[in-house]
Amino acid sequence: MRFETHVVENETSRSYPYVSYRKTTRLRSLLQRETLDFLMEAHDGLSARIAENIGFMGLWASGLTISTALGYRDANEASPIQVLDAVERMADVTDVPILVDGDTGYGNFNNARLFAKKLCDRGAAGVCIEDKIFPKLNSFVGEDHDLAEIPEFCGRLRAIRDRVPDRDFVTVARTEALIAGKGQNEALDRAHAYAEAGADAILIHSRQANASEIFAFADRWQNRLPVVIVPTKYHSTPTCEFAEKRISVAIWANHNMRAAARAMEDVCLRISNEGAISGVEKDVMALDRIFELFKYCELDEASRRY
Amino acid sequence: MRFETHVVENETSRSYPYVSYRKTTRLRSLLQRETLDFLMEAHDGLSARIAENIGFMGLWASGLTISTALGYRDANEASPIQVLDAVERMADVTDVPILVDGDTGYGNFNNARLFAKKLCDRGAAGVCIEDKIFPKLNSFVGEDHDLAEIPEFCGRLRAIRDRVPDRDFVTVARTEALIAGKGQNEALDRAHAYAEAGADAILIHSRQANASEIFAFADRWQNRLPVVIVPTKYHSTPTCEFAEKRISVAIWANHNMRAAARAMEDVCLRISNEGAISGVEKDVMALDRIFELFKYCELDEASRRY
Amino acid sequence: MRFETHVVENETSRSYPYVSYRKTTRLRSLLQRETLDFLMEAHDGLSARIAENIGFMGLWASGLTISTALGYRDANEASPIQVLDAVERMADVTDVPILVDGDTGYGNFNNARLFAKKLCDRGAAGVCIEDKIFPKLNSFVGEDHDLAEIPEFCGRLRAIRDRVPDRDFVTVARTEALIAGKGQNEALDRAHAYAEAGADAILIHSRQANASEIFAFADRWQNRLPVVIVPTKYHSTPTCEFAEKRISVAIWANHNMRAAARAMEDVCLRISNEGAISGVEKDVMALDRIFELFKYCELDEASRRY
Amino acid sequence: MRFETHVVENETSRSYPYVSYRKTTRLRSLLQRETLDFLMEAHDGLSARIAENIGFMGLWASGLTISTALGYRDANEASPIQVLDAVERMADVTDVPILVDGDTGYGNFNNARLFAKKLCDRGAAGVCIEDKIFPKLNSFVGEDHDLAEIPEFCGRLRAIRDRVPDRDFVTVARTEALIAGKGQNEALDRAHAYAEAGADAILIHSRQANASEIFAFADRWQNRLPVVIVPTKYHSTPTCEFAEKRISVAIWANHNMRAAARAMEDVCLRISNEGAISGVEKDVMALDRIFELFKYCELDEASRRY
Repeated sequence: MRFETHVVENETSRSYPYVSYRKTTRLRSLLQRETLDFLMEAHDGLSARIAENIGFMGLWASGLTISTALGYRDANEASPIQVLDAVERMADVTDVPILVDGDTGYGNFNNARLFAKKLCDRGAAGVCIEDKIFPKLNSFVGEDHDLAEIPEFCGRLRAIRDRVPDRDFVTVARTEALIAGKGQNEALDRAHAYAEAGADAILIHSRQANASEIFAFADRWQNRLPVVIVPTKYHSTPTCEFAEKRISVAIWANHNMRAAARAMEDVCLRISNEGAISGVEKDVMALDRIFELFKYCELDEASRRY
Repeated sequence: MRFETHVVENETSRSYPYVSYRKTTRLRSLLQRETLDFLMEAHDGLSARIAENIGFMGLWASGLTISTALGYRDANEASPIQVLDAVERMADVTDVPILVDGDTGYGNFNNARLFAKKLCDRGAAGVCIEDKIFPKLNSFVGEDHDLAEIPEFCGRLRAIRDRVPDRDFVTVARTEALIAGKGQNEALDRAHAYAEAGADAILIHSRQANASEIFAFADRWQNRLPVVIVPTKYHSTPTCEFAEKRISVAIWANHNMRAAARAMEDVCLRISNEGAISGVEKDVMALDRIFELFKYCELDEASRRY
Repeated sequence: MRFETHVVENETSRSYPYVSYRKTTRLRSLLQRETLDFLMEAHDGLSARIAENIGFMGLWASGLTISTALGYRDANEASPIQVLDAVERMADVTDVPILVDGDTGYGNFNNARLFAKKLCDRGAAGVCIEDKIFPKLNSFVGEDHDLAEIPEFCGRLRAIRDRVPDRDFVTVARTEALIAGKGQNEALDRAHAYAEAGADAILIHSRQANASEIFAFADRWQNRLPVVIVPTKYHSTPTCEFAEKRISVAIWANHNMRAAARAMEDVCLRISNEGAISGVEKDVMALDRIFELFKYCELDEASRRY
Repeated sequence: MRFETHVVENETSRSYPYVSYRKTTRLRSLLQRETLDFLMEAHDGLSARIAENIGFMGLWASGLTISTALGYRDANEASPIQVLDAVERMADVTDVPILVDGDTGYGNFNNARLFAKKLCDRGAAGVCIEDKIFPKLNSFVGEDHDLAEIPEFCGRLRAIRDRVPDRDFVTVARTEALIAGKGQNEALDRAHAYAEAGADAILIHSRQANASEIFAFADRWQNRLPVVIVPTKYHSTPTCEFAEKRISVAIWANHNMRAAARAMEDVCLRISNEGAISGVEKDVMALDRIFELFKYCELDEASRRY
């Protein structure tokens, strides 16, 4: 079983009781079940391992945060293979399913299906692609967010479905209709078209400070497919309201990276000002905790065993 | 000039007054001048950009933290080319020189010189190699730290010097004699041998909670070559004492990663407990600040210009 | 078929009549059955695709030839991740199983098991590791071929078996005892120890111009495990003799690369001398044949479909 | 000097008399001087090393052949970073300048300048980009070759010029106007616009079986900038005619790969039919010749020296 291929990197995984299904199957269940679930952003092996360890049931491999960690701007400066490599590192050190932010699919239907196929090979459980044109720009930056033609974007979705052999691999269609200021009708038309094209869920994106346009969409959409949201901008909307609107998955889309960035800025500033590290010692993770997270003890045992 | 090749990624670099020398030359100066200087750890583009932005004059590309970010253990699980790729990402988004933790050089003299040569090509200013055997284990883990034979390790140093074409590229020889419990005489013998072999500086490593064995070394070494230290374990020793002992460079060796790890663990826990992101919003870096760090505005201007 | 090549890696492949088993299972069968089988060397996507297309039932991803194609020497100058990437490209465009030349495993037991695990993830069907020390040098070059200690090498073998989750993934133990001039007893002792440690087959290597020492080994070994050979140097020994000696698999270990190198040297020389390409046109592969090998027509159909 | 950074990989390079200029400067000279020069296709370290060794003064890193070697179709299936990695391997083992086929620049002005900047960092001497839209399809396949808008493509050219710090790095603008069936006026209009935008040379592409449309272009263009051609389809046109038309550079664009592919197909077929390798032994390159090309003797000497 493919799933087994990926869990064992983490030695203890064999004993996790819940690891009885493949990652793709588990992500699919997460989307389809009635409850509201959460995906936590991760951008490298460390952030993924930490998020899993705290108990998140799934991860969001964010295009923005993978790019940022690499030192690229979220404008398709990173090559798809670099994103793929980052995702593989996350998948290799965790047991929870990963939904990957596939941007626009990095080109046309052919690029999209190739990328999705390789994501599946490398251990991801699903991909989300958005209805913009390559190269994209981050949805929170500027006003230049042209939408793809509906049939062309549906072609990308269908090509992914036809290519990825694991039937449980999840394809989420993200519409930027509201980001582009095209209104609810456009968003709904697109969502319906994407459902026809075989999407497993719809991610409806918004950059308003409140969830009203998201909720308006949800009311009319009537859960034809599970709805996924990214409340980065409307973070103050109480989560229970998402549940009431029968949102399926909320993605905490960039908070590991932003927490890390803030902490690094703080620690750099303090060390720079204090000319010393003793002051920050108690505020950073102990090395032993790092060694524990990545099971250095297993290495020690193993070196005696082999 | 090679240096120019690397700085321009960062648009504003052209106006930095101090960017009048190549990175290798600047790292060399940092080592050779009388004052005590500091290198801040970085492990990816983001951490490097932040550390530079706060004002550090040089970076330490740590083997431990690059490995950890990738989700590997610090036991040469990451391929040298993965470390190289990480260093390139750091070099591409910063103007300050980077000293790279080259572990043992990833094998024999041939692996070491090849790695150093590529580091130079990819924008690093120097490499530090340690007198252990590939694959190494982190110096703070376990007791299994066999030292390399002196002539063999000197061969690695000489091979690097002969191969890297940039005469200012820095080669730091790190001795693990004290880590391995071999005592001061061994450490000094090795340091002298490494000086003969062409090292530009000596990194004397210790995992004691105080600096006494470091200082004992410094007293007898008499600065034949600049001394570099890594006060991770003896962090409570006042920095002024390092200066008094005429230490050349102190490396804050893993604090960006440890700050990030702690912050990610905290933010994951809070979001998980609160089932929401609104509570952490003010404690993570604003997205606009991320966009500023990586000059998204340049992208906007440029898209009008081109 | 290229497109199918991408699906067969996984689940749906089971419906193809000839692809009725996983690649690992098929390689295992190839080794275990009575007949003599052949693996053809490949070093990149193109060579793999061609070898499969001609009808070879399995491929040998050679360390020498992958290194050479990349422009490295066969002395572990290439990073394991570069070999892994090359293997993935081969696996992605072919349906036949690939046995990967894993050199020494790139370090100790930990490097070996990590490499084997990733090979399995990336689509290889098996790995072969040899009982030398990292970094190795090509077996046909020089006299410096120190053997690893038997227990240490067995540790590498056991670590691979314990780590790779696919039970059919093949681990071949290659002994360099004859290359190192240690004689038949050493070779046999090692082979028996490697069998105990869980190897699936023994590769007995020789650089003599005839197969006598290989046959002497085979006579005493009595097929406790299947025997694999690399007749590069004793190429003039008739293949039927291998079959008589009940050799399981013969590897044509570098002939695609050497054919390519010779042809490129010839074509460069001719074009250089003639100052024109018209003379060589009929002697190089037609572009249409390249397009056929990689099914450009599928791309055309697909662009109409999506 | 950057150039020095790249030549020393090849030990003997120091003694080459002509290596007195940087690779970028030499490629620029090649383009600008009156004589007709040739670039030979290469796609990996081995093909590059062979072409240089035979005496070609420059190399063409072809998108088609790099893709094909990797097992991708020439439709931007390979990530830009994979092309970059391939080019670096070529540059590391050769002293002659490399002009890189940059396809469309892999997206918009930002992707194009980032790619060109990294090519320069990794040792290429120039880039050629074509006036089509990402993702492109090979010019010899199908009829679907939409041209980019002139101002947008000029933006890509200007962005490259502004970003790459080495003033001698060459930017070749390739127009597909004739491929797209747009006629001479369109081709000329575009060439003039690209010259205004700062291109260093114009590559005029054709897939006709004779050079008449190329020559018609050359007659009207009057060498405002040097002209580069790719005579793959009109190979039977005598080279002297190119010189008469004052073509600056002719690219032998895929012949190493096609020679290799043909030879591999032949050798696979023969080995498969003969069930043996003895028959082909004399027709493939001797291993010793491979060892010579990559200077294994240097490794041997060095292992005694270090």
